[in-house]
Amino acid sequence: MNIPKLKNTDKNNFFLMAGSCAIESRDLAFEIAEKIKGITDQFGIPYIFKGSYRKANRTKLDSFTGIGDIRALEILQEVGNHFDLPTVTDIHESIEAEMAAKYVDVLQIPAFLCRQTDLLAAAAKTGKAVNIKKGQFMAGVSMKFAVEKVLHEHPGATVFLTDRGNSFGYGDLVVDYRNIPEMQAHGVPVVMDCTHSLQRPNQGSGVTGGQPQLIETIAKAAIAVGAEGLFIETHPNPSVAKSDGANMLQLDKLEGLLEKLVKIRQAIV
Amino acid sequence: MNIPKLKNTDKNNFFLMAGSCAIESRDLAFEIAEKIKGITDQFGIPYIFKGSYRKANRTKLDSFTGIGDIRALEILQEVGNHFDLPTVTDIHESIEAEMAAKYVDVLQIPAFLCRQTDLLAAAAKTGKAVNIKKGQFMAGVSMKFAVEKVLHEHPGATVFLTDRGNSFGYGDLVVDYRNIPEMQAHGVPVVMDCTHSLQRPNQGSGVTGGQPQLIETIAKAAIAVGAEGLFIETHPNPSVAKSDGANMLQLDKLEGLLEKLVKIRQAIV
Amino acid sequence: MNIPKLKNTDKNNFFLMAGSCAIESRDLAFEIAEKIKGITDQFGIPYIFKGSYRKANRTKLDSFTGIGDIRALEILQEVGNHFDLPTVTDIHESIEAEMAAKYVDVLQIPAFLCRQTDLLAAAAKTGKAVNIKKGQFMAGVSMKFAVEKVLHEHPGATVFLTDRGNSFGYGDLVVDYRNIPEMQAHGVPVVMDCTHSLQRPNQGSGVTGGQPQLIETIAKAAIAVGAEGLFIETHPNPSVAKSDGANMLQLDKLEGLLEKLVKIRQAIV
Amino acid sequence: MNIPKLKNTDKNNFFLMAGSCAIESRDLAFEIAEKIKGITDQFGIPYIFKGSYRKANRTKLDSFTGIGDIRALEILQEVGNHFDLPTVTDIHESIEAEMAAKYVDVLQIPAFLCRQTDLLAAAAKTGKAVNIKKGQFMAGVSMKFAVEKVLHEHPGATVFLTDRGNSFGYGDLVVDYRNIPEMQAHGVPVVMDCTHSLQRPNQGSGVTGGQPQLIETIAKAAIAVGAEGLFIETHPNPSVAKSDGANMLQLDKLEGLLEKLVKIRQAIV
Repeated sequence: MNIPKLKNTDKNNFFLMAGSCAIESRDLAFEIAEKIKGITDQFGIPYIFKGSYRKANRTKLDSFTGIGDIRALEILQEVGNHFDLPTVTDIHESIEAEMAAKYVDVLQIPAFLCRQTDLLAAAAKTGKAVNIKKGQFMAGVSMKFAVEKVLHEHPGATVFLTDRGNSFGYGDLVVDYRNIPEMQAHGVPVVMDCTHSLQRPNQGSGVTGGQPQLIETIAKAAIAVGAEGLFIETHPNPSVAKSDGANMLQLDKLEGLLEKLVKIRQAIV
Repeated sequence: MNIPKLKNTDKNNFFLMAGSCAIESRDLAFEIAEKIKGITDQFGIPYIFKGSYRKANRTKLDSFTGIGDIRALEILQEVGNHFDLPTVTDIHESIEAEMAAKYVDVLQIPAFLCRQTDLLAAAAKTGKAVNIKKGQFMAGVSMKFAVEKVLHEHPGATVFLTDRGNSFGYGDLVVDYRNIPEMQAHGVPVVMDCTHSLQRPNQGSGVTGGQPQLIETIAKAAIAVGAEGLFIETHPNPSVAKSDGANMLQLDKLEGLLEKLVKIRQAIV
Repeated sequence: MNIPKLKNTDKNNFFLMAGSCAIESRDLAFEIAEKIKGITDQFGIPYIFKGSYRKANRTKLDSFTGIGDIRALEILQEVGNHFDLPTVTDIHESIEAEMAAKYVDVLQIPAFLCRQTDLLAAAAKTGKAVNIKKGQFMAGVSMKFAVEKVLHEHPGATVFLTDRGNSFGYGDLVVDYRNIPEMQAHGVPVVMDCTHSLQRPNQGSGVTGGQPQLIETIAKAAIAVGAEGLFIETHPNPSVAKSDGANMLQLDKLEGLLEKLVKIRQAIV
Repeated sequence: MNIPKLKNTDKNNFFLMAGSCAIESRDLAFEIAEKIKGITDQFGIPYIFKGSYRKANRTKLDSFTGIGDIRALEILQEVGNHFDLPTVTDIHESIEAEMAAKYVDVLQIPAFLCRQTDLLAAAAKTGKAVNIKKGQFMAGVSMKFAVEKVLHEHPGATVFLTDRGNSFGYGDLVVDYRNIPEMQAHGVPVVMDCTHSLQRPNQGSGVTGGQPQLIETIAKAAIAVGAEGLFIETHPNPSVAKSDGANMLQLDKLEGLLEKLVKIRQAIV
């Protein structure tokens, strides 16, 4: 992986993409980044700060969508500079790629959009690393073609694939761990998204549900089968978060979780 | 439904959106439109000519994506004018909405993109009718929010919802007919996509499969339970089609199929 | 189909298996049989009276399991004799086949048990017609082997296959109408179970839920695609039924439903 | 767990149920038992020898079903006595429980039959430990009722629950690791069946497929999330096995696999 400012890359550990779902404020972003940087340095975990500058596919129209694109991107950049951390954000249309690339180090392709050729190409052209989330309707084997779409525009690009579960009936997702080795066969690091994979979609209310008590189960299994990275959304107080509050990890539980996961990692390498 | 040039609207019949998957050439588009116009006038079926001007989410990078956006859109417009038929095409990013709206009468939102607020809003702003395909990961009840996103930008818009099946394991889709009454409860006409709902996704080869021998089964059930419209991709020779050849209906089978469906329609109204 | 006492077989109509879930009392059985016999004679529908003499796979231990095996079987026999109707009941272990066969005309194999070779063989050996429910985990194509297991023991047996939906996540079932032509290809009549296919399994409470408002949708689609039979559980007052109350059809809605279905049937033959 | 002859129970390790699918011959049973006993003693793993005395739900009629019930049960008993090991076999109808209980230490309820109250009760009445496989159509939370059915007949019984995956479309199963903590909440040890959960059901050929290369993935995830036991079918030469050859683990790969799993176990306790 060729990602600027990434630390602890010599520790043979898994890496972590983590932060709040959306960038809600500069203060919150700094609080989260500082806390996680401290924990990950302690455990020797390479860390990428995550924050969405806009939520483009909320179920309902009146859901929170962001504090303003440029403002949120500036906060991401400030966090990266202040803590000397790489940052990641997600983009939704081709036109956003170049703009977002000025502020962050990794561009993320949302799961619903993982087959949109133009979007993958636009992300690739920026020269940034690209994290593609596997669609809830996709098999791991089929993600090979998404990786190829990026590498075609940017040979040698750093690409990773993130699993966030598959549709299991209407109101549930299931994580199929067979997809980890199957996606690793495409020659890229594989990440487990431990929070979105616990979402409960298609709730009649228009507010997606979650099961945060199972984050540890999802994460332990991922590390044990060899996932190179974890993606975890976290918030000091999920119940007041402006999006995805139902499935984020409470920030003060992160240290205890990572401690357990590092032990499993050491048992398999 | 407020769609220009739509005929046979006084027949209390289902309507039909049909054409080849992609616009492959002017000659082919005219051949298909002429044939279907003749058949639908005979049966009193309101008909909308369908053609994609670009294929934006092909699995593989080297798949056919179109003959050029403007050229394909011009052909759609010519077909509409020549045969006095409304036309529909799909768009993939917000920026395409205004352009496509100059040439066609109905804008279609692809299934993977049915939750992208910006795209729905951009389509709505054009003032055209909007056909939203239900995502393979969506319940019919949740499509209420997609309809609301369009109506928010364009109160009074003509919107319809099209079912094209739900993920059923990795390599298969299943049509859940409960979604027809559930989507009708959102106050819009509901369409069954009889060809894409028979796709076989996630084939290792990167070429989506199909089961055209079951199109009649899918269509009969839809009409019987009260679907207001059908969506059928058809081609004089599916085996040489440049996309979706595996699941399109052979054009010369359309008349026999519609004859059976009209009888079922008459039995339920 | 070779089933004693079956009427209206010359009407080219679909046939009906219907009754309450469990045999709750002689009075209730007679009330239901009389009502349905009247309706089906009016519409020219061959009718088989259904009732379970025992419920062997209730989720919870304290659920109602029956009024006593022999008492319930005697009521089934009385109904058959009194109204000159064939009857059907389900069996759960091989040892029950011979006993049940003394009282009823059709033996039914429950969906969970459709792969139990001994049970299929025991049913076949009685010489009675056998109705095999397709497991919630089975594809229509695989039911070929279940049919063969019966025909091996009893060449020339009357066998039919009944679809009651497939697992769709934990708490839901989905009916895949492709299974109707696929099971018909095994050379047997295919029945749609319109009530159990709307069950909501795996409810935390241990009481299976239902969606009776969708029975008409399930039934219309089945008839339109050519199902030879329908299976409907019905009760004068489902809310007080001793089992499956959540998904049975209210008895006084049966006539209106069948009237609509007969019209669809006439449109397809 | 109260199981006679079970060794290594003081090691805080996971336990193992393993053997060939069916009892094919005395020689094969002894070969497998000796090999696995050696490996498990080396790693401090409590070991239960597994063998089916009859295969009662083969897809096709002409598949191998066993060498004779009593002969196979005698071999199981001999293995238990000779190697001082507990043994487990599966039963399919109530009448088999008492017979099988004379020869083995643990009775296993097949997944398709996990809701059959009579069968669970018959197993419980023997006083033996009972291993209930979770149906492919069951949520972990619902298995609470199966446990209760056993405990009702035999208060204090040793019961464990084994996951073998859930239906995921027709031709595939998926293991949902959330079921492990959810079943542990019922107060019983939870086992992961690492071989049947990789079956490929509903193959048109009538022969269930498998993916043995993924056994390690399934097992590692199970141990990491805290499963108390593993179930693995293994054979010196799976390609000549008389049943389930497609998904059994090659016997000489067992030692390497267990070595890795023991390390993960040590990391989590």
